Amino acid sequence: MSDWRAILDQNAFDFSRSGSTDARLNRLIEQRRHLVGPTAMLFYDEPLQLVKGEGVWLYDSAGKRYLDAYNNVPVLGHCHPRVMDAVTAQMSQLNIHTRYLDDALHRYAQQLLSTLPLKQGRLVMTCTGSEANDLALRLARLHTGQQGVIVSAAAYHGNTQAVTDVSPSSLKRGQVPAYVACIDLEPLNTEGIDASAYLDQQVEAAIAQLQRDGYGCAAFLVDSIFSSDGVYADPPGMLKAAAARVQRAGGLLIADEVQPGFGRTGSNLWGFDRHQLSPDIVTFGKPMGNGYPVAALAADETLLAELAEVSGYFNTFGGSSVAVAAAQAVLDTLDEEALQANALSTGNRLKQGLQGLAEHYEPLSHVRGAGLFIGVDIVSSEDPTRPDSVLCSRIVNGLRQRGVLIGAAGRYGNVLKIRPPLCFNHDHAQHLLDALEQVMAQDLIRR
Amino acid sequence: MSDWRAILDQNAFDFSRSGSTDARLNRLIEQRRHLVGPTAMLFYDEPLQLVKGEGVWLYDSAGKRYLDAYNNVPVLGHCHPRVMDAVTAQMSQLNIHTRYLDDALHRYAQQLLSTLPLKQGRLVMTCTGSEANDLALRLARLHTGQQGVIVSAAAYHGNTQAVTDVSPSSLKRGQVPAYVACIDLEPLNTEGIDASAYLDQQVEAAIAQLQRDGYGCAAFLVDSIFSSDGVYADPPGMLKAAAARVQRAGGLLIADEVQPGFGRTGSNLWGFDRHQLSPDIVTFGKPMGNGYPVAALAADETLLAELAEVSGYFNTFGGSSVAVAAAQAVLDTLDEEALQANALSTGNRLKQGLQGLAEHYEPLSHVRGAGLFIGVDIVSSEDPTRPDSVLCSRIVNGLRQRGVLIGAAGRYGNVLKIRPPLCFNHDHAQHLLDALEQVMAQDLIRR
Repeated sequence: MSDWRAILDQNAFDFSRSGSTDARLNRLIEQRRHLVGPTAMLFYDEPLQLVKGEGVWLYDSAGKRYLDAYNNVPVLGHCHPRVMDAVTAQMSQLNIHTRYLDDALHRYAQQLLSTLPLKQGRLVMTCTGSEANDLALRLARLHTGQQGVIVSAAAYHGNTQAVTDVSPSSLKRGQVPAYVACIDLEPLNTEGIDASAYLDQQVEAAIAQLQRDGYGCAAFLVDSIFSSDGVYADPPGMLKAAAARVQRAGGLLIADEVQPGFGRTGSNLWGFDRHQLSPDIVTFGKPMGNGYPVAALAADETLLAELAEVSGYFNTFGGSSVAVAAAQAVLDTLDEEALQANALSTGNRLKQGLQGLAEHYEPLSHVRGAGLFIGVDIVSSEDPTRPDSVLCSRIVNGLRQRGVLIGAAGRYGNVLKIRPPLCFNHDHAQHLLDALEQVMAQDLIRR
Repeated sequence: MSDWRAILDQNAFDFSRSGSTDARLNRLIEQRRHLVGPTAMLFYDEPLQLVKGEGVWLYDSAGKRYLDAYNNVPVLGHCHPRVMDAVTAQMSQLNIHTRYLDDALHRYAQQLLSTLPLKQGRLVMTCTGSEANDLALRLARLHTGQQGVIVSAAAYHGNTQAVTDVSPSSLKRGQVPAYVACIDLEPLNTEGIDASAYLDQQVEAAIAQLQRDGYGCAAFLVDSIFSSDGVYADPPGMLKAAAARVQRAGGLLIADEVQPGFGRTGSNLWGFDRHQLSPDIVTFGKPMGNGYPVAALAADETLLAELAEVSGYFNTFGGSSVAVAAAQAVLDTLDEEALQANALSTGNRLKQGLQGLAEHYEPLSHVRGAGLFIGVDIVSSEDPTRPDSVLCSRIVNGLRQRGVLIGAAGRYGNVLKIRPPLCFNHDHAQHLLDALEQVMAQDLIRR
């Protein structure tokens, strides 16, 4: 298709246009352009200046309230008191790196590792998910002696050089490197498709391509909710055969849990568990500290020992005292507030509601997702086989004007991305559904 | 030399030995080994469990006090109230990423950029210095179309794949990639050497090597205090000719200010300014948020526009509301507490004291440094031309037993690395000197 675009530009403000009738906002946009520069992206046709967050709500500088159905970093909700208290308390005691002994780190590592299917699992704290995925690739390449990596066609795994190379969604021009093989997710929309067999065939072809081109297969790096591809969740277990094939071929399975992890998919704490996978490496990021920067990688002792033989690895901010305190508060609160169960219940309610709307509004096509990560394909009213990124953008911006924040995703930028904090409840879901119905009824053709 | 070792292992606890006579500490060490694994390094022959920090002081679990002359992340001192207050206040209001407008980010960017010699400077917030250097390499390679990078022989620039490749100090086995050319700093110890001419010749040879091997010269990536090489600071201006040569050859000058920046060298806010350099890219890290994870890259609009043409760039935690609040508090407090001036004054006092000790104790050889970043070469008592990493380790551990924390650095692991928070005053300096004299007098041969 010709309308391929960088996922990161989806829902982006266009700096070449004036942003607002509001002079103050325009001044802020100009400052932004002159201070932060060309790589800095703003959301929405009329960018937002936010000043306050609480639970699922965000407030702009004019006092207007927005329902946050986009941000997954504040997984417990904005400004959650448990995390604030933990960070404040630890910050007043000590904030130091991991080259001193810290039993809080041990406690956290033990708790997190106990949820993973690794035999001799070890937890390496990093600061960002990008760093965790970057390290995962190093471990996989060192262990296998191969270079090739399999990812989904619109994958995003982070911002370093190494992970940008395996993030086709970051590309605005050109192609992924030859050592990257991509698998296309869209055919999973085909009615009656055997998803497991399809993915297995795709991975088989990817391995063959990488072997033929001399790169071999180091890893299958997978975000099992396929966030930037436009959310492909079902059926559970669909990745099992494909993942096993990679592992049989000597490649490692890297489960990137930055998006699906920490209960978001509702049925499981981890995305890989929903598909009954046995990853060799698991990476964690965004929601891990509810906004405090913390991330991690888990792998078996043997993989880490291979790295330690050839290279030092140290992460200054990774696993510092305050980062661990924040991460522990997140794990504890997820449990105490039963947020995984809420993600399942609210997610099901929301998906039902969206499916109901899709029956009435032609441009709302496939509704996919698990728990509180839902994607809705937007297609042309004239031709329902054509992805419509322009209309998708109009819906996203229409919702923003009505006080509901969501995003856009997918290879063609035509998927509504709904991914709220996990404290999103049934009333919030109804609020979103009502706003979406207003947008559709006002702006668009009723079926 | 045969005793080359990874800098990151310097001053490392050896897990193959029992750590302590203290059973509780040994249990913690065992937990560490089984939860965090082989890449996790601990400091000192008897690792420390720290529980509290305040200013320049750290406290272990037994209540013993340590003078911190090692940690540069808490640049204002441990648990500085200004940063704690700023983080707490912002955390209770909003903590969100940079795809919304934020005038606090603009204010900070403007203030930081005003200190840099960039024409159309823009500030890209990242989460870690590793990410900033990784991005700097991408910008340089994209702009120049070349791959080669010049670094110092024991450089350390971070932990991602791309920056590990240009960090010879992280190597435990093997060699740096062929597109990396290294310049050796040790000859700067030679009496009467023309440092500027020497560095210029080294860089000339490095450029020639990279061009001959077909990589070309994309960048000279330089930590201008040469932290991991063992601290080479003088004379100011010594890098000017070398840097200009790189820029004339079409390569970019990347000033890695993670170590020398934010006033540490005393005479200047930035290390590159001390050498009168005009960097194309400046990267910031560790001390920027006094422990709150925040880092950045500054470059001209044109360089960033080139990246934005081909790739998206977004950093989830970089420049989030709380990160900016922490960074602003650091800039403000550096100024209000005149910490750069203190670094100069205390650093000079400390260097004098160390030079005095070096006159009495043969193993204390060259004393180098600027402001509060000082290195002292440790050489064999029998043969003063021979670096003595074993003795260096004994001194570092002797100081630790006497309640003073420093580190080790240098290509041969034989340099005392003294790099305290910038609130380190003359009394603290005297405390360190007294402890060092005790270690030398008790353990070693008096000249």
